[in-house]
Amino acid sequence: MTEQITQARLGLLVGQRNYRELRSILAAMNEVDIAAFINDLPIEEAVIIFRLLQKPIAADVFSELDNDIQQRLVEAINDREVATLFDELAIDDAVDMLEEMPAELVKRILQNASKDTRDLLNQYLHYPEDSVGSVMTAEFTDLRPDMTAADAVAHIRKFGQDKETIYNCYVVSPSRLLLGVITVRDLLVAQDDALVEDLMLTNPISVHTTDSSEEASKLLSRYSFISLPVVDDDNRLVGLITIDDAAEVLQEETTEDLERMAAMTPSDKPYLKTGIMTLAKNRFLWLLVLMLSGIVSEFVVGRFELAISAVPLLVAFIPMLSDMGGDAGSQVSTLVIRGMALDEVDNKSTIKLFVKELMVSLFVGIPLGIINFLRVCFANGAPLVALTISIALLCTIIMANTLGVFFPVFARKLKIDPALMATPMIATIVDILSMLIYFSLASALLGV
Amino acid sequence: MTEQITQARLGLLVGQRNYRELRSILAAMNEVDIAAFINDLPIEEAVIIFRLLQKPIAADVFSELDNDIQQRLVEAINDREVATLFDELAIDDAVDMLEEMPAELVKRILQNASKDTRDLLNQYLHYPEDSVGSVMTAEFTDLRPDMTAADAVAHIRKFGQDKETIYNCYVVSPSRLLLGVITVRDLLVAQDDALVEDLMLTNPISVHTTDSSEEASKLLSRYSFISLPVVDDDNRLVGLITIDDAAEVLQEETTEDLERMAAMTPSDKPYLKTGIMTLAKNRFLWLLVLMLSGIVSEFVVGRFELAISAVPLLVAFIPMLSDMGGDAGSQVSTLVIRGMALDEVDNKSTIKLFVKELMVSLFVGIPLGIINFLRVCFANGAPLVALTISIALLCTIIMANTLGVFFPVFARKLKIDPALMATPMIATIVDILSMLIYFSLASALLGV
Repeated sequence: MTEQITQARLGLLVGQRNYRELRSILAAMNEVDIAAFINDLPIEEAVIIFRLLQKPIAADVFSELDNDIQQRLVEAINDREVATLFDELAIDDAVDMLEEMPAELVKRILQNASKDTRDLLNQYLHYPEDSVGSVMTAEFTDLRPDMTAADAVAHIRKFGQDKETIYNCYVVSPSRLLLGVITVRDLLVAQDDALVEDLMLTNPISVHTTDSSEEASKLLSRYSFISLPVVDDDNRLVGLITIDDAAEVLQEETTEDLERMAAMTPSDKPYLKTGIMTLAKNRFLWLLVLMLSGIVSEFVVGRFELAISAVPLLVAFIPMLSDMGGDAGSQVSTLVIRGMALDEVDNKSTIKLFVKELMVSLFVGIPLGIINFLRVCFANGAPLVALTISIALLCTIIMANTLGVFFPVFARKLKIDPALMATPMIATIVDILSMLIYFSLASALLGV
Repeated sequence: MTEQITQARLGLLVGQRNYRELRSILAAMNEVDIAAFINDLPIEEAVIIFRLLQKPIAADVFSELDNDIQQRLVEAINDREVATLFDELAIDDAVDMLEEMPAELVKRILQNASKDTRDLLNQYLHYPEDSVGSVMTAEFTDLRPDMTAADAVAHIRKFGQDKETIYNCYVVSPSRLLLGVITVRDLLVAQDDALVEDLMLTNPISVHTTDSSEEASKLLSRYSFISLPVVDDDNRLVGLITIDDAAEVLQEETTEDLERMAAMTPSDKPYLKTGIMTLAKNRFLWLLVLMLSGIVSEFVVGRFELAISAVPLLVAFIPMLSDMGGDAGSQVSTLVIRGMALDEVDNKSTIKLFVKELMVSLFVGIPLGIINFLRVCFANGAPLVALTISIALLCTIIMANTLGVFFPVFARKLKIDPALMATPMIATIVDILSMLIYFSLASALLGV
């Protein structure tokens, strides 16, 4: 609520060009809120407000801005300002931005950054996308095993200022091999003369620069760690990945999974920021495939033209059967795919899953079939038609539940993202099978 | 990988009753891995292994165990062990467990816990489920504004041992009013004689005990905070909520949303732990509603029996039309619902969304319609039937996209969870409308 008031009041001050008061208000604000405010301003005003910010805050605010505003700011500020800004930014944030920027802007930024920053940026830009290397931070606190607790605290006090996190300190050998981890809390409550090597936890859980950032995020969340050390091929400490970056990665992965499950090509950008043509492109191919796979169900239904002419009533139940297959299939595949994403469902549980879902489909399908039978009998007085529909419905639900397990499990065996094998595909395949069963049953039971 | 080997080796040692070696291996393991191991043991062995653990670790391991193992352990250990265990547990973890346990176990635990623990537990058990109060931790570090940085660090060294996090310290007045926040990092890098009140950030962002834990989690993730202070009606500090709890809350909320979107009643337990009858119950009612809403499409299609008898070919395209409506609708509703869950889509953007999705539906639907027209003409040589299907397809996609925006937006206006208004419901309604359009067009164009 206070945020809303402040935004309106800030807007007013911008309009009045009351920069003195603006500067003092901005100094007391959180960088995320300042960024939210700047994001909503026209670019000319955004540049002015951005220049009112003090240097270290400016970098924090910059990393929270929308991509397009970041680009336009970099275009609008001078070379010296670019240099200061990128030297102040956390390396991982800077790399994220550079990856989104057009090539000429990246070139200008790299030319203006200090040599140290430039080297780091170049190194990071070479890590594969979605790898731990590309999201890790290089600004961490490292300790030596032969320091005392008092030395270590003094070291942190001296060098901890610009580090992304000081709370997990990693202990390295002179050749930078990762030896252990110790928390600031442990250091603070230890005796002053206790040695770091006696206090530290040895064999810390670590990740490799080329591991996927999703895996690293899962480890962080599994163990409730604040950070994880990142090592290279020789087990040398090169960086760390922090829980706030990890939470972001997991959220992005979940969004991507959801998009795949709904038969879309995942988008890098948030929905509202994605253009109409991109949205259309991300969906078109999938819908085309699904539309064309309709040919099979057309063929199946087409074979039963005579039955349909003889008992047109059969047609009225096609949409319901078709929907129920999709609905039951999506219930199952959603649970299985989500279970896989959260590492709750593993390969050992495949048989258990099939048995479980077969049982569920009977417990759900039999009562639904009976209710449906009574309803259709009552409404249409055609018990054989009602029986046909109800048996077809039960078969549809059994198939949907079985395929809802099968497709994600099969995809994972083939090392394909299980989310790709989701609702729409299952719905289409269940449709084909259920039409085949429905009309075959009708032929047999109704003699048409 | 090392975890797998250790688990197998540990199992072997349990079989051999080599408890001495087990104890020394367990002492070096992370509590999460120990819990994963104990979860897989039969209860008799689980109790033995649990008793091998040292007291502070035992509590950490206990809080990571599955609910059923926790209950059976509490049943198997004596009163004094229960007392020690629950006094060692973090209050928020203890409360989570108690909420899952049968009443007689809760009674036994409360009777055996120390008075302080019992009072705290009782207080927590009264906060509404899913409120900040029920997930906050009461073990935090508080400072006074008139302490110096050196005093504050000494205070943390003395009292920080058992606190869940010491990294954000909250500054309170003598009457416990929340005055500000300061990080351990700021304290460590400050001059020894600097005053906390000069170093602290005033007006810290805080949450109220009765706020929803989901809202608090979003704030934590928005600002990338490690913790947020929790205050009562009088702005007095009563606890804090930490980022690891928040990440868990967000993950649970996402799973619940997914389950609602796939037309299921959300389950408290992970999928593999949920019984067959519960799974069936959580799905049955939704499938029943969807099945019965099929009555409307039956009625619509039933009205066109004559057209169907005259042109049975029309029937073959019903499954495809029905699936496409569901598929396009799920693409849109997934994006809108996810956007709302991530707070990217707000009420201001409603009109923008409708316009956007209308455009997307044209860009997707027109080419699909054309492709479909050519294909049906080629396969069946019936241009008027092909035209009927293609127009119906375009209308279906437009309706699916529009309703895919409308239902979640409408749900939010009514303060209903948007995830409830998802794919299956949209598919069913689009089905009814598209059947109406399809057969009306057929009547008009084909004169049947």
